[in-house]
Amino acid sequence: MIMREVSIIGVGSTVFGKYKETAAEELGRQAIEAALKDANVRHKDIGMAACGNVYGGFCLAQSTLMEVGLAGIEMINVENACVSGSSAFGLAHRAIAVGDYDIALAFGLEKMTSLAPAQLAPADTDLDGRMGLLFPAVFALIMRRYLEKYGVTMEQVAKVSVKNRHNGCLNPYGQYKDEITVQDVLESRMISDPVTMLQCCPNTDGAAAAVLCAADLADKYCDKPVSVAASVICSGDYNHRQGDITFSDLTHKTARIAYEKAGLGPEEIDVCELHDAFASNELMHYEELGFCGVGEGGQLIDSGATALGGKIPVNVSGGLLSKGHPLGASGVAQLAEIVWQLRGEAGERQVEGARVGLAHMLGGAVTGLEAGSCGVHILKI
Amino acid sequence: MIMREVSIIGVGSTVFGKYKETAAEELGRQAIEAALKDANVRHKDIGMAACGNVYGGFCLAQSTLMEVGLAGIEMINVENACVSGSSAFGLAHRAIAVGDYDIALAFGLEKMTSLAPAQLAPADTDLDGRMGLLFPAVFALIMRRYLEKYGVTMEQVAKVSVKNRHNGCLNPYGQYKDEITVQDVLESRMISDPVTMLQCCPNTDGAAAAVLCAADLADKYCDKPVSVAASVICSGDYNHRQGDITFSDLTHKTARIAYEKAGLGPEEIDVCELHDAFASNELMHYEELGFCGVGEGGQLIDSGATALGGKIPVNVSGGLLSKGHPLGASGVAQLAEIVWQLRGEAGERQVEGARVGLAHMLGGAVTGLEAGSCGVHILKI
Repeated sequence: MIMREVSIIGVGSTVFGKYKETAAEELGRQAIEAALKDANVRHKDIGMAACGNVYGGFCLAQSTLMEVGLAGIEMINVENACVSGSSAFGLAHRAIAVGDYDIALAFGLEKMTSLAPAQLAPADTDLDGRMGLLFPAVFALIMRRYLEKYGVTMEQVAKVSVKNRHNGCLNPYGQYKDEITVQDVLESRMISDPVTMLQCCPNTDGAAAAVLCAADLADKYCDKPVSVAASVICSGDYNHRQGDITFSDLTHKTARIAYEKAGLGPEEIDVCELHDAFASNELMHYEELGFCGVGEGGQLIDSGATALGGKIPVNVSGGLLSKGHPLGASGVAQLAEIVWQLRGEAGERQVEGARVGLAHMLGGAVTGLEAGSCGVHILKI
Repeated sequence: MIMREVSIIGVGSTVFGKYKETAAEELGRQAIEAALKDANVRHKDIGMAACGNVYGGFCLAQSTLMEVGLAGIEMINVENACVSGSSAFGLAHRAIAVGDYDIALAFGLEKMTSLAPAQLAPADTDLDGRMGLLFPAVFALIMRRYLEKYGVTMEQVAKVSVKNRHNGCLNPYGQYKDEITVQDVLESRMISDPVTMLQCCPNTDGAAAAVLCAADLADKYCDKPVSVAASVICSGDYNHRQGDITFSDLTHKTARIAYEKAGLGPEEIDVCELHDAFASNELMHYEELGFCGVGEGGQLIDSGATALGGKIPVNVSGGLLSKGHPLGASGVAQLAEIVWQLRGEAGERQVEGARVGLAHMLGGAVTGLEAGSCGVHILKI
C-alpha cells in the first residue's frame, strides 16, 4: 500500500474560558479562521472538514463552517467523548492519506457553560452513573488504589496541578493565569475523596483547528510544515476485568501502535500533551506512555523531568487542568500546542529544540472503567 | 495514488418499527450480529467500526459493540443528520481503501420513540425553527412551489406514498404492512398544507449494519461480494440563495461526483434507494439524480418506470415512507437493501437482473434550506 504522508500547515485556537453568551459556531469560526490564516490557504483549497464535538448536536460542523463561508465539501461530525477532537483530526488525516483530498480541516469545539444539568446527567442505561459513579468518583477510586499500590503521595499528585497551572500562566490561550501551591491544591474543596477541586479540570468553552495537507504539497503553503508521524485512534476493552485499574491498557496499546507507526520510542519524545482531566491521571499516563516504569509516576514528577526545562516536559500548554477542557476541542488544541512547540513559536513556554511531540487523549463511558476511546498522535519537524 | 477497492461482504438489519422498551444498543447488536454472520467473519477480523447515530449521545458505538463482544479497535461515532449512516459507511470504506485495515464494520442505529420532545425541538440558535419552520413546513413550502412551477399534481405526489407502501408490504424488514390508495394519502390528516400524514415518513426505531472488506480478500469470505463503485459524502451551500428550492444542487452535485467515480451514468442504475422523508422529495430527487429531466418527476411516477417491474425501480424496500426512518440507521439500511437486490436475495420485491444500485440520503439543518449533508453510494456486482 502506498499512503500519502500528511503534514500540518496551520493551527489556530480561541482563548479557552467561559463564554456563556457566545454561540459554539462563533467560537469555531474564530479558531478556524486563525488556522486558515496560519496555513495561508484559501477557502476553496479545503477539500473536507471533520469536526469533534460532544454536546452540540445536529450538523454543528455544517453550521460552523457556514459562518466561515466554507460550504459544498465533505463534512463529518465526530463524537468520541474526550477523544472527539483527536478523532476528527484522524479522519482528516486519513482523507488526505488515501488521496481523496490534498487539504483538509480538522477542528473541535465545545460550549460547556451553557449545558443544562440534564445534558450532563448519566444516560438512563448507565446504571453505575445513576448510582453516583460519575467521573470524579471513578477517578477518586482509581487514585486511591494508585496511591496505595505504589506509595505515591498526595503531594506528588498535587504537584501535577501546580506544574500545569504554572505552564498555563505562560500560555495566552489558557483559562487560568494564577499560580497555585501544593497546599492550595490539597486544601481546595473536596470533590470526591481524595480528589480535591484543584485536581480537576474546569468547565470550559473553546475551539481549536488545524489545517492538514499532503506532505509533498506542504512547502507550497508553509515554511515549517509539521509531519504527522502517527495518527492512531483505538477503543478499549473492559479494563476493570483485567484486574488493575491503575494502568490504562488502552493508552498503553494505542501508544505502542503509534510508536511503531512513527518508528520512534518514548525516549525520543521532546514534548508531550496528555489527558490530565484529573491530576492523578497524568502520573499514570507517564507510565503507560513509557516515560517511566510502572509505579514510578510520582518519582518522575518529583525529579522535575516533566516540568519546563526537564527531560520530557508534559502539558506545557497547562493541560486540561489549567488551559481548560472543552471536550470536543481539547484533542485539536493539544495538536496546535505541539505544532507551536515544534515550530519554536511557543514563547515563554517553549521547549528548547523540540523536534518530536506526542499528544494523548483518553475518554469514554461515564463509568470511566469501560471501553471508551484513546487517541495518540506523534508529530515531528 | 493507489487506493484499494472495497467490497461489501455482509449486511444485516433489524425489523424497523417501534421498540420503546428496547435499548439502542440491543437494536444495534441484532443488526451487527446478522451482518457478521452474513459476512462469515470472526469478531477478531474486524479492524475498525463506524457508527451513524443522531440522538443517542456519548460513545454509542463503544457501548453497542461491547454488547457484541467487540472491543479494542478503532471506533468512530458519526453524526450527519439523516446522512449519519451513509457517512459511517463512507468512513469505514475509506479506512479500508487507505490500507489501515482489511475489514471494517459500518452500522447505524436510532431510538426515535424514546426521545423527549425537548430533544427534537429546534436549537436555541435555530431562529427559523423556533418560529415554526420545522421539516414538514419546510417541505410543504418546497412542495407547493414544485407543484406550481411544473404542474405536478397532488395525485402524482400521493402515488409515491402508494408505491412505496406497496413495496414495503413485500419487505420483511419494514414498519408498515398494509396497502394504501391515492385517496387514503390525500385524505389523511393535514400536517402542513399541502403535506398530509401519509406523505411523511414515520417515527421509527431500528438498526442496520454492513461489513466491508478489501476487494482482493472478499472472495475468502463471500460468494457474492458487492463492489463499492463510489462512496461520496458532500455538504451543501445555501440552496435558497440560488433561487430554486425545487432542485437540490447538493444531491445533483454529490450524484455527479459519484457517477464520475463509478464511471457510470444514471441510465445504468438498475435499482435505487433514495431519501423519501416526504413523498414529494422522491419526485424531485428523480430529477436531481438524472432519472428524468427537470420538472418531469410527476410524469416519471405516472409512467410506472420507478415501480417494481419498471425501468428504474425506486425505493423497492418501501423507502423511508414505509420501511421507516430511524435517522442514523437509514443510510446503512439502504445499502443493505441494495446488497440484497444485487445478490438476488430480495424475495418478492426483487428487481430482476439488477447489477448496479444507487443509494442516496440527504439531511441537514432544521430549516432544510441550509447546508446539510448528502451521501451517494453506487454498488455493483
